[in-house]
Amino acid sequence: MRILMINPNTTESMTKAIDEAARAVAGPDTEIVTVQPRRGPRSIEGHLEEATAAVATLELMVERRTGYDAYVIACAGDPGLAAARELVDAPVIGIAEAAMHMACLVAHRFSIISVVDRIKPMLTDMVQVAGMAPRCASVRTTGLGVLEIEEDWDEALRRLTEQGRLAITEDGAEAIVLGCAGMGPLDRQLRAELNVPVLDGCACAVTLAEACHRYGITTSKASAYRAPEPKEYLDWPVFDSLAR
Amino acid sequence: MRILMINPNTTESMTKAIDEAARAVAGPDTEIVTVQPRRGPRSIEGHLEEATAAVATLELMVERRTGYDAYVIACAGDPGLAAARELVDAPVIGIAEAAMHMACLVAHRFSIISVVDRIKPMLTDMVQVAGMAPRCASVRTTGLGVLEIEEDWDEALRRLTEQGRLAITEDGAEAIVLGCAGMGPLDRQLRAELNVPVLDGCACAVTLAEACHRYGITTSKASAYRAPEPKEYLDWPVFDSLAR
Amino acid sequence: MRILMINPNTTESMTKAIDEAARAVAGPDTEIVTVQPRRGPRSIEGHLEEATAAVATLELMVERRTGYDAYVIACAGDPGLAAARELVDAPVIGIAEAAMHMACLVAHRFSIISVVDRIKPMLTDMVQVAGMAPRCASVRTTGLGVLEIEEDWDEALRRLTEQGRLAITEDGAEAIVLGCAGMGPLDRQLRAELNVPVLDGCACAVTLAEACHRYGITTSKASAYRAPEPKEYLDWPVFDSLAR
Amino acid sequence: MRILMINPNTTESMTKAIDEAARAVAGPDTEIVTVQPRRGPRSIEGHLEEATAAVATLELMVERRTGYDAYVIACAGDPGLAAARELVDAPVIGIAEAAMHMACLVAHRFSIISVVDRIKPMLTDMVQVAGMAPRCASVRTTGLGVLEIEEDWDEALRRLTEQGRLAITEDGAEAIVLGCAGMGPLDRQLRAELNVPVLDGCACAVTLAEACHRYGITTSKASAYRAPEPKEYLDWPVFDSLAR
Amino acid sequence: MRILMINPNTTESMTKAIDEAARAVAGPDTEIVTVQPRRGPRSIEGHLEEATAAVATLELMVERRTGYDAYVIACAGDPGLAAARELVDAPVIGIAEAAMHMACLVAHRFSIISVVDRIKPMLTDMVQVAGMAPRCASVRTTGLGVLEIEEDWDEALRRLTEQGRLAITEDGAEAIVLGCAGMGPLDRQLRAELNVPVLDGCACAVTLAEACHRYGITTSKASAYRAPEPKEYLDWPVFDSLAR
Amino acid sequence: MRILMINPNTTESMTKAIDEAARAVAGPDTEIVTVQPRRGPRSIEGHLEEATAAVATLELMVERRTGYDAYVIACAGDPGLAAARELVDAPVIGIAEAAMHMACLVAHRFSIISVVDRIKPMLTDMVQVAGMAPRCASVRTTGLGVLEIEEDWDEALRRLTEQGRLAITEDGAEAIVLGCAGMGPLDRQLRAELNVPVLDGCACAVTLAEACHRYGITTSKASAYRAPEPKEYLDWPVFDSLAR
Repeated sequence: MRILMINPNTTESMTKAIDEAARAVAGPDTEIVTVQPRRGPRSIEGHLEEATAAVATLELMVERRTGYDAYVIACAGDPGLAAARELVDAPVIGIAEAAMHMACLVAHRFSIISVVDRIKPMLTDMVQVAGMAPRCASVRTTGLGVLEIEEDWDEALRRLTEQGRLAITEDGAEAIVLGCAGMGPLDRQLRAELNVPVLDGCACAVTLAEACHRYGITTSKASAYRAPEPKEYLDWPVFDSLAR
Repeated sequence: MRILMINPNTTESMTKAIDEAARAVAGPDTEIVTVQPRRGPRSIEGHLEEATAAVATLELMVERRTGYDAYVIACAGDPGLAAARELVDAPVIGIAEAAMHMACLVAHRFSIISVVDRIKPMLTDMVQVAGMAPRCASVRTTGLGVLEIEEDWDEALRRLTEQGRLAITEDGAEAIVLGCAGMGPLDRQLRAELNVPVLDGCACAVTLAEACHRYGITTSKASAYRAPEPKEYLDWPVFDSLAR
Repeated sequence: MRILMINPNTTESMTKAIDEAARAVAGPDTEIVTVQPRRGPRSIEGHLEEATAAVATLELMVERRTGYDAYVIACAGDPGLAAARELVDAPVIGIAEAAMHMACLVAHRFSIISVVDRIKPMLTDMVQVAGMAPRCASVRTTGLGVLEIEEDWDEALRRLTEQGRLAITEDGAEAIVLGCAGMGPLDRQLRAELNVPVLDGCACAVTLAEACHRYGITTSKASAYRAPEPKEYLDWPVFDSLAR
Repeated sequence: MRILMINPNTTESMTKAIDEAARAVAGPDTEIVTVQPRRGPRSIEGHLEEATAAVATLELMVERRTGYDAYVIACAGDPGLAAARELVDAPVIGIAEAAMHMACLVAHRFSIISVVDRIKPMLTDMVQVAGMAPRCASVRTTGLGVLEIEEDWDEALRRLTEQGRLAITEDGAEAIVLGCAGMGPLDRQLRAELNVPVLDGCACAVTLAEACHRYGITTSKASAYRAPEPKEYLDWPVFDSLAR
Repeated sequence: MRILMINPNTTESMTKAIDEAARAVAGPDTEIVTVQPRRGPRSIEGHLEEATAAVATLELMVERRTGYDAYVIACAGDPGLAAARELVDAPVIGIAEAAMHMACLVAHRFSIISVVDRIKPMLTDMVQVAGMAPRCASVRTTGLGVLEIEEDWDEALRRLTEQGRLAITEDGAEAIVLGCAGMGPLDRQLRAELNVPVLDGCACAVTLAEACHRYGITTSKASAYRAPEPKEYLDWPVFDSLAR
Repeated sequence: MRILMINPNTTESMTKAIDEAARAVAGPDTEIVTVQPRRGPRSIEGHLEEATAAVATLELMVERRTGYDAYVIACAGDPGLAAARELVDAPVIGIAEAAMHMACLVAHRFSIISVVDRIKPMLTDMVQVAGMAPRCASVRTTGLGVLEIEEDWDEALRRLTEQGRLAITEDGAEAIVLGCAGMGPLDRQLRAELNVPVLDGCACAVTLAEACHRYGITTSKASAYRAPEPKEYLDWPVFDSLAR
């Protein structure tokens, strides 16, 4: 099968890291293609960046809407997820949802540990819309910017460990969902530190995409994710083309 | 005070109707400016259109981020609301939230009646994120497209009345929130038919913007709606300019 | 328009403060009339006082049930709110609901900070019935009695600031709802201390009453707030008169 | 032990029926005293009547606050329950809470069937504040006024049976809570019709009061139900006396 | 009446303590019979032990399914409760549900304090299924094993007091539900320490069983607790006998 | 990898069907071993059967607790799931949870359609404990017994189609979770009838087990699913052996 991994931001080192994380876990018959949008923010640390990266992701989805058996949106806020599902029949999996669902298979409650503090309300809303609030012990943050993680892996691991311990002892977490695609390379080290499952959404999403593909499950077109109505877009050719 | 009314779609007749609804209720010292984005979908009837219209709205917000005392996003899905709040200190009010909050002042429970059936899951999520689920009796739809409303007002009123009656008798609604800016002109007629408060979000939002302004309340910058982090945007000058 | 502000307790200094808060924010065409019941508790710090003050408020409402365009119940537990809505067609707005709804327009989550510790369960129930729990980060108390606030404004501000900081840092609040009408005069000072919106319900309720009035919204009579059934009251002339 | 049964309304035939229901179930060592307030509405079918009956009940409680081992408020909206608990150390049990808790011992979900349609929102709020919403399948109404029940028992039974059947087949109810003290005399007949537990709150409350008494459980004075603060009441001697 | 008290574990000293707690509170006409299963774990401190003890309890229930007016499952996880209700018409009461419902009659919120830390998620689920989450302030643990309690009563009381104080001051608890049948003998001492109601489920369940019996309430057979379908059990005579 | 599929009931034809469903979807490197307990009920249609089948499943798990990379409990009530997770480090996946999580990847809301009507409350509780209530549109039943399904596939499909249509049109479902392992063979036919994803938990669980295995995720031992405490079991050798 072919999976399109989409890094919604425009930082190439993250695109590369996502690609590596996906390949590391993909099955032998799975082809991974990893891309990033032509435009948009370098990282996603707030609502504005999420909204713009979502649309940049959707522009990319339109162009690539055939030729893949599954799509992964590789940012822990799942930007543009519902809209992307409208565009294709193949499954579209967000890495936040992926990691949360997989965490539920091995833990009574999970916590999400993410980046800058300001992201907490946004992720809390994301958990709510995903219907995952009953299983989510807490959303915590490390205070690190998205692009700071790869600048100092030791510091990132130290902060993740610190927050992870608090999540376990204070909040009742029994697994940790990494709240940023950029944290993926630390999953095994953090697992060793905390002795609980630590889930990188990219890895989870790839294996879930394979799961859907093997069973032949595709996106429901009953209502929420129906193909967009044929519609004129003023001065926005990529989306206007959908109705032609 | 000056209020910027933003119609997130690109249909001029709707922009004009929103302008009229706003002016009809605005106080004598309130100046209404109503605009629409330079690009984007003609109407919003799904997630893709909401995501793209949100970004078109945000582009417009960046350009107009000074000179207004309040902003109103005049589409019943409140597209881009959280991100828009990051861009300015002045209050930014979505017409869905506006109508829901005002409904709570005069009714035990409200129902939302909107357009095409596929919009129901999206509005349900919006109600959830707005924290309004405990007061929302139901989300109902008329099956009408956004732009069909103004093509046949009688039919629109007939369908709204039908769904409104069901909302009252079956779901326990005691007020009706109009689930599309295009339905605004029907508020008083529907009120007469149903004998319950019927709330057009445009009218509600203008009066709530005036309320905030009079009391001097502005958007909290504590966390969720902080100004965006200074950040490079690849090939997207309007947002890239924010960091300069 | 004419708004009747009702202080449900019988302390004149509070009635005067409520009147001043209302006038400070009211528009030029708004006439404020502020009253207090003929009998009842000096302050409201528990369920018994709330129940008795509610009825004293309702007695007053019966006498004044014509001649006003809106009514405000100016106590942060919203005593008698639902019953008062049965008595008139005009909107009846409680200051707790008013401040909570307005907080939702400018903040992701709000906290309520109130008086004596014992009030916390009562306010928690009030938030629940108002359907505001999803947006309420916490209910906190200062330990001050209602009438102690005006005895030492500096101490009151100090305690509000202390609890406000905790609400922001520990609970995720992004706005503060003042949990007692007597705290109203401190709103701007506390705003300056905390750097988040601080909402006095009296001010909010006046502007929301004006908003309802301008848009022509009145209390739904569909079910919860219908006029009382014609009914004999044994030995209670003011309510017995309603059926005559 | 001595139980004070309080009928919050002022209709003697209901007071007598409550007394009979209580005596029918009380143990041999239980003394039942049944009273009604000196003033107040003839029946409770809305918020105004509930608020006034609550205060009339509280006036009565003040006078009788010694000499009883438990108190029962015998109206299905539990008027004044929290305030009454402030006044005494002995348990105070509302018949709605009593029937709901007992229903949970024998049924997965219960429905409440009550009187006039307008009562439904009020009872829904009561269920919410009681924390019983997760076990409550529905609140239904017969359309009968409180005092109409005893005028035509056959019709009342017919309507209760009709709504009970719907509650079981449509809503998933497995027990029925009678939503009016006046329906108590029909409990056994309705049980025979529906073949599920049917709970009259008066009977439930008496046996729960006995249960509390035998185990020595009294009202918590930790916070919500502390004795009222010593406080002046303007022109309301019965409550003013509490502080003397 | 005759109540069968079932200690789901196989430790005789606990069976004896349960018997004493039951007799201490039972009315003069109540006969208490206390038993334990023929096989199974010595104590219940996790899901495996709960599942096995539940079945051992059910085997015992089958043998004793006639001759009693009520059954009590005397373990604070309520093991096998729903299944036991299928086996008899008489009420079956779990001590956790019993204590929680009785706590609601005298306190705004309760906390459960139990044994080993690992039990917390299991009890949290139990509270959720019981629909008691809205009234439950917290689940806390002492870290003591079930059988350690009776080895050092002073230490057990010390730890319960410590956690009880935290429940009251940190979590808003106003009553304490003992989270293990083995803690029952400490109820009065802990009540004296904490000055709030402390509820031993065994005592609560006995008085609630008497309450149900006096009012004539039995288990609903409408759906969840219907008698098991006639069914062959391979190699499990006690359950296979049900279909004969 | 090796997956142990456990049919918790003792009907061989169902064990065989489960085996076939698993093999049909398993990857080339996955070895499927399918077993059933040595004793227990022929089918699971209520709480008693679920409790007994859970323990029979756990007995089997103890014997097989090494040698497998994942375990699947193949009954739509997920009997014994939490306890089974205590017994092994490998993931243990219930087919209900599996199908619900996978449904969330492709649908906004799902409905469960199951067997006899009495199962509905039990499945509702299961959904609640799984934390899946926010995404579950409804639980519906066909009225068919577990073993009746394979007796008349056409009738089973007819009833599933009927309930599936109602779930979609009345409840807002966008995917269907099959509420019985015995319905698995109908998944593709029902998908064709309803035009939405139809999920057989056996297939979902196998692919999710593979997903966990590939990523190296195992059951959290932090709290809820720790290995059982070393403990004597009276007269139950299989569990007693765990402590030796």
